[in-house]
Amino acid sequence: MAGLVPAIDVFYADVSDAPGASPAMTPEIAMSTTISPLAPLHVPDMPAIAGVRLATAAAGIRYAGRTDVLLALLDAGTTAAGVFTRSKCPSAPVEWCRTTLQKGKARALVVNSGNANAFTGKSGREACKFTAQITSRAAGCKPGDVFLASTGVIGEPLKAQAFDGVMEGLVARAQPGDFIAAARAIMTTDTFPKVATATAKVGKANVTINGIAKGAGMIAPDMATMLSFIFTDAAISGPALQTLLKDGTTDTFNAVTIDGDTSTSDTLMMFATGKASGSPRITRAADPRLKAFKKALHGVLANLSEQIARDGEGARKLVEIVVEGAVSKISARRIAMSIANSPLVKTAIAGEDANWGRVVMAVGKAGEPADRDKLSIWFGGIRVAHKGARDPGYDEATVSAAMKKPEISLKVALGLGKGRDRVLTCDLTKEYVAINGDYRS
Amino acid sequence: MAGLVPAIDVFYADVSDAPGASPAMTPEIAMSTTISPLAPLHVPDMPAIAGVRLATAAAGIRYAGRTDVLLALLDAGTTAAGVFTRSKCPSAPVEWCRTTLQKGKARALVVNSGNANAFTGKSGREACKFTAQITSRAAGCKPGDVFLASTGVIGEPLKAQAFDGVMEGLVARAQPGDFIAAARAIMTTDTFPKVATATAKVGKANVTINGIAKGAGMIAPDMATMLSFIFTDAAISGPALQTLLKDGTTDTFNAVTIDGDTSTSDTLMMFATGKASGSPRITRAADPRLKAFKKALHGVLANLSEQIARDGEGARKLVEIVVEGAVSKISARRIAMSIANSPLVKTAIAGEDANWGRVVMAVGKAGEPADRDKLSIWFGGIRVAHKGARDPGYDEATVSAAMKKPEISLKVALGLGKGRDRVLTCDLTKEYVAINGDYRS
Repeated sequence: MAGLVPAIDVFYADVSDAPGASPAMTPEIAMSTTISPLAPLHVPDMPAIAGVRLATAAAGIRYAGRTDVLLALLDAGTTAAGVFTRSKCPSAPVEWCRTTLQKGKARALVVNSGNANAFTGKSGREACKFTAQITSRAAGCKPGDVFLASTGVIGEPLKAQAFDGVMEGLVARAQPGDFIAAARAIMTTDTFPKVATATAKVGKANVTINGIAKGAGMIAPDMATMLSFIFTDAAISGPALQTLLKDGTTDTFNAVTIDGDTSTSDTLMMFATGKASGSPRITRAADPRLKAFKKALHGVLANLSEQIARDGEGARKLVEIVVEGAVSKISARRIAMSIANSPLVKTAIAGEDANWGRVVMAVGKAGEPADRDKLSIWFGGIRVAHKGARDPGYDEATVSAAMKKPEISLKVALGLGKGRDRVLTCDLTKEYVAINGDYRS
Repeated sequence: MAGLVPAIDVFYADVSDAPGASPAMTPEIAMSTTISPLAPLHVPDMPAIAGVRLATAAAGIRYAGRTDVLLALLDAGTTAAGVFTRSKCPSAPVEWCRTTLQKGKARALVVNSGNANAFTGKSGREACKFTAQITSRAAGCKPGDVFLASTGVIGEPLKAQAFDGVMEGLVARAQPGDFIAAARAIMTTDTFPKVATATAKVGKANVTINGIAKGAGMIAPDMATMLSFIFTDAAISGPALQTLLKDGTTDTFNAVTIDGDTSTSDTLMMFATGKASGSPRITRAADPRLKAFKKALHGVLANLSEQIARDGEGARKLVEIVVEGAVSKISARRIAMSIANSPLVKTAIAGEDANWGRVVMAVGKAGEPADRDKLSIWFGGIRVAHKGARDPGYDEATVSAAMKKPEISLKVALGLGKGRDRVLTCDLTKEYVAINGDYRS
């Protein structure tokens, strides 16, 4: 749980202090100006990715005084991969991407914040089609080469005409990239833009992987969604890229929970332009030349997903939950998620209380094999419970001091097998309730 | 969701205003003096049950200035049934009851508040054995005829010696019943004692069913558990009683959730003394003479479980969730529970926001068959979403007025089949977080 990289506040100038900021700004925007105390201290320099050009615009979808549309133009030959929400009620853009992805090729990505285009019926599908058409016309590609993502209010029809007014300008201005501006355009209740970068050798070529993400709550005040987009100049076929992305998700984005609520719009996509000088064309995910690339990709995905936990709505503590000694990794994951999603565990951590009784409860309710009398529990590296009872050496003062830190590690050892897993979450504070419940009053 | 029955506050006099109330009273006690605004307006007169004698005492387990032990003495011939937590880490008393219940006979029940005797290892098992021994000695029965339940702190060894000082007195004072005093002795963070009563004909006999319960959070501040005990003077065999109780639980106690956190100690037990004048001895749950009894039992279980939802920690709204048109009742239950346990739905209701987008999210994440474009949603009887989009007749003012009521009904129609179910929950407020997180600070 190491920190990342410069003063985050500079990125907010145009959110809270923009001269054009309207007095009609919604309360949600006002909230976003208080940056999470868990925000990374440093933001990395984000290099350009050959074959990727970016532009942002303020289309006025919902917000005033800030950008809310991102266009990424991708050179011909770019492959695509995607992992989407498991929701049975997915948003229109998720369905659009699933269909479009069957070709495995991409020329453009359009992302908007302020409206999720979810639960919008036929008009939602039409908004997707319209957006893809105007994008393809402006960018000189086919509508089926355009990927779409939306985050914001659910159930409000998305007025895609708003994109019509900005699309020509976006295409004209698109240039090798300001990824931080891109990350900022897709924020909703996020309190900081989320970016990460890594490099790796593929064969003899140096390739770069850049990622951006937005998170906050799984659904924020009236708004929605985890979105993340990864770009690389490596040359990797669509099917291989899909395998890499899916494998990479298991222990990163799928191992993070804010509130257990899965959005209708969760989208993680990856694009590979193949424009890195001398990059060999890889067609199998198992290709040994991808070893360093896989590691770098994992680093980007893990970094971005940790940033999402750090920016959980109302979060004041980053919480790592490690479960070991389970009968399998899957069992360890289920137990870790049961702990991570327990309101009682999360409120205890907000209260700086090493309440291991609630951890026992969460282990017990997971439905996975567990033997109470073999169970041991650590908070912040201090063993508080051992073999089914309070640790004989338990010292309240030592444990209380550990609980005051902004990053808390909670470990459970089941003593049954070799299954181990790790998930990240945050605490449940009154601010979470305020953000998600108070804004009407 | 009809209200029940006299001013609740009279029952609290001896909690908050007792002359013996110690200045060392814990903060949890102080909290409990604010009665839930959802508390029933009326409490029924609780008749005695032939064959049941009750007594309460202050053993000083954790609380000062209030009763914390309940003894119920049961006449010879009393049958018993029980339904317990599905937790894989159950408390010592739950394990004790499961074993003892194999005989299906009962002579005594001892319940304490203040300590759950959960996750207490070998000392927990010894505390159960010791308590059963001193009870059996004082009551003149076998240790295997004694049932036990504990609620309170997890992980602290239960000092069962405290019962030794009060047991002779409890047995001496036990008399046909003050069920309200009994319900009060088992409270932890409950803000009101929970009782219910009903009568029914079995054959030509008039029988009575009385129940008491305690709830609050599934685990309250540092404390635990839903407990409920039902007493009847009907004559029903142990196996038949077990079937009746199990069947009765499905749509009552198992259809209530406060926070999705399942206690290590949840216990629902039922005792039938067979002492009602002229009561025929029933040995099969399917006996047609039980028709009215089953209905009366369902009423008692439904009433008590609704009171638990009304006293959810920090609750300001009682929420009924009805799911219909699902592919099966089980599917409807899973979807209803996904909605009822969603922090985002619960915080929206706390904010008096008919946020049906979050309901769509919760339906989608349940993993059950659902077709977004057939989905309709009602808040307080007003249809807000229809066939996959916002209802054309949606009127914000009308819906907002409905959301201000203390009891909210939320209905989802899936349009797929005939599966229907109903669960009860409450909203998620800042008070919940305060009760469960703030007490250390």
